[in-house]
Amino acid sequence: MDFLDEPFPDVGTYEDFHTIDWLREKSRDTDRHRKITSKSKESIWELIKSLLDAWSGWVVMLLIGLLSGTLAGVIDLAVDWMTDLKEGVCLSAFWYSHEQCCWTSNETTFDDRDKCPQWQKWAELMTGHAEGGGAYVLNYFLYVLWALLFSFLAVSLVRVFAPYACGSGIPEIKTILSGFIIRGYLGKWTLLIKTVTLVLAVSSGLSLGKEGPLVHVACCCGNLFCSLFSKYSKNEGKRREVRSAPDVSPLSLLQVSYYFPLKTLWRSFFAALVAAFTLRSINPFGNSRLVLFYVEYHTPWYMAELVPFILLGVFGGKTTQLGKYPVLEVIAVTGITAVLAYPNPYTRRSTSELISELFNDCGALESSQLCDYINNPNMSRPVDDIPDRPAGPGVYNALWQLALALVFKIVITIFTFGMKIPSGLFIPSMAVGAIAGRIVGIAVEQMAYHHHDWIIFKNWCRPGADCVTPGLYAMVGAAACLGGVTRMTVSLVVIMFELTGGLEYIVPLMAAAVTSKWVADAFGKEGIYESHIQLNGYPYLDVRDEFTHRTLATDVMRPRRNDPTLAVLTQDSTTVEDVETLIKDTDYNGFPVVVSRESERLIGFVQRRDLTLAIKNARQKQDGVVSSSVVYFTEDAPQLPASNPQPLKLRRILNLSPFTVTDHTPMETVVDIFRKLGLRQCLVTRSGRLLGIITKKDVLRHMAQMMNQDPESIMFN
Amino acid sequence: MDFLDEPFPDVGTYEDFHTIDWLREKSRDTDRHRKITSKSKESIWELIKSLLDAWSGWVVMLLIGLLSGTLAGVIDLAVDWMTDLKEGVCLSAFWYSHEQCCWTSNETTFDDRDKCPQWQKWAELMTGHAEGGGAYVLNYFLYVLWALLFSFLAVSLVRVFAPYACGSGIPEIKTILSGFIIRGYLGKWTLLIKTVTLVLAVSSGLSLGKEGPLVHVACCCGNLFCSLFSKYSKNEGKRREVRSAPDVSPLSLLQVSYYFPLKTLWRSFFAALVAAFTLRSINPFGNSRLVLFYVEYHTPWYMAELVPFILLGVFGGKTTQLGKYPVLEVIAVTGITAVLAYPNPYTRRSTSELISELFNDCGALESSQLCDYINNPNMSRPVDDIPDRPAGPGVYNALWQLALALVFKIVITIFTFGMKIPSGLFIPSMAVGAIAGRIVGIAVEQMAYHHHDWIIFKNWCRPGADCVTPGLYAMVGAAACLGGVTRMTVSLVVIMFELTGGLEYIVPLMAAAVTSKWVADAFGKEGIYESHIQLNGYPYLDVRDEFTHRTLATDVMRPRRNDPTLAVLTQDSTTVEDVETLIKDTDYNGFPVVVSRESERLIGFVQRRDLTLAIKNARQKQDGVVSSSVVYFTEDAPQLPASNPQPLKLRRILNLSPFTVTDHTPMETVVDIFRKLGLRQCLVTRSGRLLGIITKKDVLRHMAQMMNQDPESIMFN
Repeated sequence: MDFLDEPFPDVGTYEDFHTIDWLREKSRDTDRHRKITSKSKESIWELIKSLLDAWSGWVVMLLIGLLSGTLAGVIDLAVDWMTDLKEGVCLSAFWYSHEQCCWTSNETTFDDRDKCPQWQKWAELMTGHAEGGGAYVLNYFLYVLWALLFSFLAVSLVRVFAPYACGSGIPEIKTILSGFIIRGYLGKWTLLIKTVTLVLAVSSGLSLGKEGPLVHVACCCGNLFCSLFSKYSKNEGKRREVRSAPDVSPLSLLQVSYYFPLKTLWRSFFAALVAAFTLRSINPFGNSRLVLFYVEYHTPWYMAELVPFILLGVFGGKTTQLGKYPVLEVIAVTGITAVLAYPNPYTRRSTSELISELFNDCGALESSQLCDYINNPNMSRPVDDIPDRPAGPGVYNALWQLALALVFKIVITIFTFGMKIPSGLFIPSMAVGAIAGRIVGIAVEQMAYHHHDWIIFKNWCRPGADCVTPGLYAMVGAAACLGGVTRMTVSLVVIMFELTGGLEYIVPLMAAAVTSKWVADAFGKEGIYESHIQLNGYPYLDVRDEFTHRTLATDVMRPRRNDPTLAVLTQDSTTVEDVETLIKDTDYNGFPVVVSRESERLIGFVQRRDLTLAIKNARQKQDGVVSSSVVYFTEDAPQLPASNPQPLKLRRILNLSPFTVTDHTPMETVVDIFRKLGLRQCLVTRSGRLLGIITKKDVLRHMAQMMNQDPESIMFN
Repeated sequence: MDFLDEPFPDVGTYEDFHTIDWLREKSRDTDRHRKITSKSKESIWELIKSLLDAWSGWVVMLLIGLLSGTLAGVIDLAVDWMTDLKEGVCLSAFWYSHEQCCWTSNETTFDDRDKCPQWQKWAELMTGHAEGGGAYVLNYFLYVLWALLFSFLAVSLVRVFAPYACGSGIPEIKTILSGFIIRGYLGKWTLLIKTVTLVLAVSSGLSLGKEGPLVHVACCCGNLFCSLFSKYSKNEGKRREVRSAPDVSPLSLLQVSYYFPLKTLWRSFFAALVAAFTLRSINPFGNSRLVLFYVEYHTPWYMAELVPFILLGVFGGKTTQLGKYPVLEVIAVTGITAVLAYPNPYTRRSTSELISELFNDCGALESSQLCDYINNPNMSRPVDDIPDRPAGPGVYNALWQLALALVFKIVITIFTFGMKIPSGLFIPSMAVGAIAGRIVGIAVEQMAYHHHDWIIFKNWCRPGADCVTPGLYAMVGAAACLGGVTRMTVSLVVIMFELTGGLEYIVPLMAAAVTSKWVADAFGKEGIYESHIQLNGYPYLDVRDEFTHRTLATDVMRPRRNDPTLAVLTQDSTTVEDVETLIKDTDYNGFPVVVSRESERLIGFVQRRDLTLAIKNARQKQDGVVSSSVVYFTEDAPQLPASNPQPLKLRRILNLSPFTVTDHTPMETVVDIFRKLGLRQCLVTRSGRLLGIITKKDVLRHMAQMMNQDPESIMFN
């Protein structure tokens, strides 16, 4: 394996927008590891160095956890403050958010908290009048103005400093983790700009979430710390192990796990732990729980409720059309969002607050409009287990506002996603689902109350019992909608656990998620991230795609029947000039090396980039290497007199173990091999003779063709 | 691919104790699927058949879920009843367990529930005396007698009817899922006998758990329903997809996921859902929660507590020595267990009850001995948030009993595991960890109470505050110990969530699990299941083993340097007699086919079993095929006059796409290929010439050799 010795700089690196070779990166790392281990016996200093090397993985994870946890906390605090800044300001300290401002005030009853004197709306501050039409209009105007300012700042920062910072970043990260190179996508500038613009975009009130972009931010952190350790900075494969760290959810890892050892999963957990720890210390949620929406219901669910749950699943599946429309102007959308959102209380507040309220069960002390039920006057005192009650006027009012909010959210989210600012789909999709769920939940509850003699309610809902929990419907709806959009059904249920801490409700969640997946699959096989990857033409081989067509390797390999013959090098009869001509005339990424053109027996594969570098290097530094020198890939080269052109020995850049399949191999198997081993290319032979080559691009194009898609959409190799 | 046409029976099947070829099974299934799809356009009947075929996966999962859920419920009820039967009997209905018996009684206060008149201990029933030394001795004697009876029945049933029913079954199931064939291991008899003897073994009070064997029972259910559908019964690969269903935990699936499509994970969740549903309907835990030990603590944990948590991890790691001792007589162990367990209240009760009590936080109404704290007389009324209190005599008493129980459990579990009855390690390991954890927890609590001026306590524990929750320590200890034994650290944390519903305590659990893994790794790299697989010599290629040695394929392949040459067939010059001699003289599982012995160009691979069957079939049914007939693997065979021996065409059993690597391929890559593609064998070539062969057995032997283990321990292919 002497080609691993890196005899001159840059051998074994890759170009931008190319795919890495996993097997090669892996064996390079093993080699490096062996070298360090054998050296470590020589001296104490080497031993310390080898220990440091062994621990560097954990150190990197610790650093990633610390930084990304800190960033997440800072972003949360900043978003809280800036969201409230659109409405008013804290007089005691302008850097306090509404909640922090009133937290420190002396008002002690719960209702007064929201109206503490230190917190003043803009109109009150500027005109002295807190109420009245004029104040409302002024507040409304300033709200829209602030929103426009924030989104303008966000979009200009992204455009000027870091174009890669826009969008959620998840599709690109999936592609990068699978072995594609996009330089700068995880760079320092992207990290900085994405963090700042994410705060601005979320605060502007646009219908977008911060979860997806946070994953991108965390991956940038990973990349940043990679460059501190040569173990990671010099190996694209190891680098990807670190970058995968922020992908905490075990099942999302499953998707890329073919290339990573199990140890990586383990370390990722460690990083997540540190991040959670850091976040807890900063404590942006104001409580000591690590879950975003803590829910606790007192009622179990009933079999009959599965029907509406499944209906919610159908709804969730249908909303996958989200985000397929072209990009519109950020400012216009922000303006429309702000103008339309302000009058409706359910759209004015931040989306996570909205979801939190929709998930909530109506306790006895709840003051929300959604909980304006007519209480039974005979009921002596508020208890935990409140029976179903008829809805009051507040609830009916809330229903109308929710219906409007639902339409608004769906439309505006479609226009928001795909804009050139950091944006996630997680929270907006959940909000859409949660609103629909809550509406259905209230409807079922009222039906059950007014018609408990109907057959469907008879068995499980006696009068005066607490049968239906509308909050649970909201949760199920959120899960269904998220499932429809991202299509990550199983991991989704796990994420919903993590977000809500509810373990009881796995069955309704599962039912809704399965239905939503089925319905969405009927509309189109791919989730939003996969569609995005395809739109960009990235070479991403999805673990989930099953290839079941009856084609063979011989149908896919190049050269095709009428093409010119395969460009090959011979082991001992090609001159430097021949090689240079070949490199100039073709744009292949590498060339197979054969014994002779007659026998076509394959001996290895050489990368174009390595070949170019090696020849350039040899021409500069090696005496007697000229255009007519013969290139030798054999172990020995003949000794020639010094006056003759000297042979150029290139065995060290030759990959002696290229991957081969026979021409009869079913493409199903070939796809499997590419997917599981992370290959760039594979050579095709018949009874020992080299016939052709299949690259990752060929495989993806063939798959696109078989699915009646445009094969030209696959652009990179 | 005409060898898939199954021209005569049994082609493409495997022998007992052999490994299947995943790629071949997969392409056979794709072929079957394509055939059905193309037929479905012919008639409505065919369309219905194809739809049935497509849905059969879900139907099988539904049936598995129903049956395994029912069995789990029945086993739970039966174990409850028989465990109580050792102590006494219910007078109102003898088939009631203690809890069910007293549930229906009229006593309403909580304390009296345990002492309801319908439930009589044996001594009371037989002599009329409930108290006194004589009654104690009689109860003791009968307790031991019942235990001996149960375990005797269990061991004899296993020995006579189903020897495969013993042990936990997890190591064998892991091996089977990875592609090994052990006929009868998942059969009907094993299912029946394992269910019955599991109840008997658990009821006898032996220190064993039922979780592992339950997985085996569920896998047997899967196999049972497989045989109903030809899609599954005829394809060993698809069969394994169904069998993997009961392995619910996403991360345990990760380990075998290389061979299965993601759809399988999805269906497994469905099966688990149905099973959970069925179990809920039978409702053995008497509440509507699906978690085994529901815990709810009111106190957060503190940073400083991480130190004892980590110490628990160290303890957990050390107990991995469990289960390495030889098999002892079941009856003797049962006798000793029963005799020693009865006097100590913590070992007399069932292990899951014990764990449940150890996990519990001491509420104000708790009557357990473990909660006998000295209450502050100034405290007006019992509240949820009880401050730390000094321990009363009951707690000190309990501490001694727990210490004895700890020693007893460790020793007896070592002797119990490996006995020839169904037994799991899950619950016993958790019990050992929980006891140790609770002891540490109480110690820390008392230190914090008596010395809250010490530096370590100063920052987080004011006098009169509730700082330490001993139940949490028990939970952490249980996780640590389980992690040490099974070494499935990450999945473990997920399982602990599932078991306890506690989401808050992820950090202490993680800290303990990591430490326990590190300590255990220092003692030996493998978990208890992996050691077991190795002891049995099964060919299991662990996903976690990393191979980092610098050997090449040429060092591992056979023939070795001094061996006779590789046994090959030629494509058109071997006679039937030659083939028969080759089969008789060697015991290889297959033979490479080359163009000619001189050129050594590989054209395919033929399985020994297929070859034997094909020749036998041809000699019986095909005219003119005699010993001197020439075997043709080419597409055309010469037309010979009828008087001559007729050629035997065998291209249809030839695998035209055998897997090849070059002799320079690092073994690291070869191991990766075997692991990820599920190969049986791989051919080694150099510049198109066939050099040798590497089988899965060779790979495993080489890995054992590199780790300084005995390569002869790998027995099967």
